[in-house]
Amino acid sequence: MAVRALVFDVFGTLVDWRSGVAASFRASGVSGDPYELADAWRARYRPILAEVNGGSRPWGNFDDLHLVTLDDLLTERDLELSVEERRRLVAAWHRLDPWPDVRTGLDALRAQRVVAMLSNGHVALLVDLARHGDLRFDCVLSAELAQAYKPAPEAYLTAARLLDVEAGELMLVAAHPWDLDGARGAGLRTAFVDRPLEYGEGSAAREDPDADESVGDLLELAQRLAG
Amino acid sequence: MAVRALVFDVFGTLVDWRSGVAASFRASGVSGDPYELADAWRARYRPILAEVNGGSRPWGNFDDLHLVTLDDLLTERDLELSVEERRRLVAAWHRLDPWPDVRTGLDALRAQRVVAMLSNGHVALLVDLARHGDLRFDCVLSAELAQAYKPAPEAYLTAARLLDVEAGELMLVAAHPWDLDGARGAGLRTAFVDRPLEYGEGSAAREDPDADESVGDLLELAQRLAG
Repeated sequence: MAVRALVFDVFGTLVDWRSGVAASFRASGVSGDPYELADAWRARYRPILAEVNGGSRPWGNFDDLHLVTLDDLLTERDLELSVEERRRLVAAWHRLDPWPDVRTGLDALRAQRVVAMLSNGHVALLVDLARHGDLRFDCVLSAELAQAYKPAPEAYLTAARLLDVEAGELMLVAAHPWDLDGARGAGLRTAFVDRPLEYGEGSAAREDPDADESVGDLLELAQRLAG
Repeated sequence: MAVRALVFDVFGTLVDWRSGVAASFRASGVSGDPYELADAWRARYRPILAEVNGGSRPWGNFDDLHLVTLDDLLTERDLELSVEERRRLVAAWHRLDPWPDVRTGLDALRAQRVVAMLSNGHVALLVDLARHGDLRFDCVLSAELAQAYKPAPEAYLTAARLLDVEAGELMLVAAHPWDLDGARGAGLRTAFVDRPLEYGEGSAAREDPDADESVGDLLELAQRLAG
């Protein structure tokens, strides 16, 4: 079955959340290593999504959930930060820079096939990120449209349904094996893109031996899929 | 309240469905005036959407509904056409040319604000049209996401919710007063764009005295909204 469309994970795969969020922590004046704070905030992401998917927390978009996890983090560490500064930190997730290959890589892939975002971030957040990075997609898809967060199968299957392709004709491109695993469980094809700097220099290497493609960047993926 | 985002009706407002569909009727070899057939097919559009919104017909996307209304039209006129040719006619709605001002007009408007499609057409169909016309949007929104067709208020309000703006911060751009009326009923701002050739030379003039803006094309709208 041919791959007719590509959907892209966003945070970590297309945009460098860590540098942008760390810069905002630094600007906020809060004490502590801004990179470590960014990592600790991000570490609360999958657990809170699991609460939503499990039904123990009502649906919230990324702005809602980021505010909850930030409040929890600051409380745990006994750090003071004004409501205004907390809002600025939540807003930082709307203007993160893409990795250097992303703009041209997406254009090359879009010349071959339909390309869409498929993020756990909500639609309005994704629109802001695409505008900030001048990234062109055919369509913005989100877990918000399924009201189920990745790796729940409905998130991937809703994307396939909206693009009017079979699950096996859709490929998820992501830097995270847990996301690619979820996509495979829903019947999608998968491409692992290595983002060794997502957690900074010297962080643990990742790989996904089950992926259909494993590449170093989006331009390499465009070459592979053109072949 | 400032206009933060624009949503665009598509068929007739951005793309010239009549010329494209008439060309496909001509290519199909069916007897009759291809423009008159295109108009007669299109005339069945609002009644069948009203059946869906009223609950007497289950949800169907535009490909499903176009096939039903084409079958009805051909039966009524006792015209023969193969299944293959009927499929080709339904597919013609996926590759319609935009009016001449649309590509540059959208770019000018996108430099000012978020721009999104908001059509009764389904997402996959809209993706095909944007790719065919090389039209750039920040986001593709559709009645499909609300499971309610315009002019039902949910179609407009779902767009506002997904773009994370108030209804009064969102402006619908359309060539059809019935659509603009629906948007106003849901609290949106409205811009009427005149498309005197939608139904061919010499067709009835349209206007919408209740619209916030009335323009001849999208470049004029960009000038108005920049002012």
